[in-house]
Amino acid sequence: MGGATRPVVLDAMGGDHGPAETVPAALAAHRDHGVPVLLVGRADDVRRELRRHGGAGEVEVVHADGIVPMAERGAAAAARRDSSLMVGCALARREGGSFVSAGSTGAVVTCAVRSLGRREGVLRPALAVALPTLTGSTVLVDAGGTADPTPEMLAQFALLGAAYARSVLGAPDPSVGLLSIGAEPGKGNRLAREAAGLLPGMPVRFHGNVEGHDVLAGTVDVVVTDGFTGNVVLKNIEGCVRTTLDMVADAGIAPSGRLAEVARLYTADTHGGAALLGLTGTVVVGHGSSRSAALARACVVASELGAADEPVPAGGRASAGPVA
Amino acid sequence: MGGATRPVVLDAMGGDHGPAETVPAALAAHRDHGVPVLLVGRADDVRRELRRHGGAGEVEVVHADGIVPMAERGAAAAARRDSSLMVGCALARREGGSFVSAGSTGAVVTCAVRSLGRREGVLRPALAVALPTLTGSTVLVDAGGTADPTPEMLAQFALLGAAYARSVLGAPDPSVGLLSIGAEPGKGNRLAREAAGLLPGMPVRFHGNVEGHDVLAGTVDVVVTDGFTGNVVLKNIEGCVRTTLDMVADAGIAPSGRLAEVARLYTADTHGGAALLGLTGTVVVGHGSSRSAALARACVVASELGAADEPVPAGGRASAGPVA
Repeated sequence: MGGATRPVVLDAMGGDHGPAETVPAALAAHRDHGVPVLLVGRADDVRRELRRHGGAGEVEVVHADGIVPMAERGAAAAARRDSSLMVGCALARREGGSFVSAGSTGAVVTCAVRSLGRREGVLRPALAVALPTLTGSTVLVDAGGTADPTPEMLAQFALLGAAYARSVLGAPDPSVGLLSIGAEPGKGNRLAREAAGLLPGMPVRFHGNVEGHDVLAGTVDVVVTDGFTGNVVLKNIEGCVRTTLDMVADAGIAPSGRLAEVARLYTADTHGGAALLGLTGTVVVGHGSSRSAALARACVVASELGAADEPVPAGGRASAGPVA
Repeated sequence: MGGATRPVVLDAMGGDHGPAETVPAALAAHRDHGVPVLLVGRADDVRRELRRHGGAGEVEVVHADGIVPMAERGAAAAARRDSSLMVGCALARREGGSFVSAGSTGAVVTCAVRSLGRREGVLRPALAVALPTLTGSTVLVDAGGTADPTPEMLAQFALLGAAYARSVLGAPDPSVGLLSIGAEPGKGNRLAREAAGLLPGMPVRFHGNVEGHDVLAGTVDVVVTDGFTGNVVLKNIEGCVRTTLDMVADAGIAPSGRLAEVARLYTADTHGGAALLGLTGTVVVGHGSSRSAALARACVVASELGAADEPVPAGGRASAGPVA
């Protein structure tokens, strides 16, 4: 490690499968994509897996004794200072690198915020996912970072999401839609209605409200919503696509064309994870059920995002509010 | 009309297409299913359409001069006392019949609540939709009736939804899940966490939290959520299924098996609309874009629901709170 390329710190103990999947992921990211990965976790377990894959000494290992269980709440997770999550975040900060974990989203978010800190002016971090759509990709933000944001936070998520879309979709001036339950600004719950009042004043190309069917249709480049609705929608879309593909398979049909491509993109094994936006470092959160291919992809995405060094969007409505 | 069978009152002016679709719908419901339909709206327009379909005198017409535009907010809609919505609701109450409209959901909900009133103990009405799943059907409640409910209202939606599932799915003891962003009761936004604390004490078979992918998977018989999230999820699922089916078609594949069945069920033309639960009368809200086949189906569903005369679930946490 060291030198020109910033490392990707991978939480070796995160996710449902731990080192059995994280170790081959680190090796694949390194061997196939030249990403310098640092594995953080129980050194004995990690080194055993490295040997099993013929990769002893190939990837650096940093010991961390503690493990954050998948069911642990955020605050409790951050209190375990010896965990692979907290040690990994601290290491990523020190090395100027990116951090990747398939641990519990809530725990990763809390630990990353505590350890890396928010960028200046950022009220709350948000999770962004680039979803494959019928025609391209749409960034969904927030996909689960902040379950109960204020309207001001939602307005800022629009800025963070637009910056992310410029970086990962290469869209020079991404369109931004607010997820609601009707096209008119007056439609929605209190939060959406208030955010609809703020968004036209933000320095983004605001399209107006979009609805549930617009997400996968790719109506806009960025769909903004609260972390509760966003997480439900993300899992709902994944479930719908998988269910429909199961029915396609049950009907004895082999997917082809865009269907085959979407089938491949919605397989957890090629999914790149969600990016945690608004922190002073790059953090990618993988699915808890991720296998090595998905985690290797997350490491590659984290490396690219870290290198892009996306500028901080000016919040405009910054305050020193507490972090969840 | 009159006699043994209670009529279905159809808002002739509701929806994007008005009498051009509502009139043939009324004729189809009457001719093919023996449903006694009353058409409420501008009598001249309605009778002209009836003649055009060779059905002059076949379906009773009640004149109402006003029309509620699709974009109108609830309170403004209820103020137009001469509208087909308000006249239709009043007529349904007087005749002990059901009411069907493809008008703006917010306007139909407000007018129906004002006109029919809530059943005793019901805090707020909720929209229920029976969604076709991989294996059968799942009731989603609230699909857009109350955008900002309290935890107590969500707990009551569970009772209303379970009663509806008994009636339309024929499930004797339906399982009920709370839509959230993690399986543990501590996961979710404030509303979901508080509702998760109330639901184990309600007289329903509470399964616990479910997530976005569980809706179409049919994990539980009833999925309970707030009207904002529910409406986003409903439109999201409809969009996902349609998008995937488009990709199936683009790939030159003819759907078969369960896929063909789901394709048929998710076509707006066979969709039966959403039932508004918790009122002293049966109300079915159709899609604004509904064509005559979908509206005819909504009339049949409304007739069946009205005849079932589902008993009121005991609220337990009743109060005289105001209605949105």
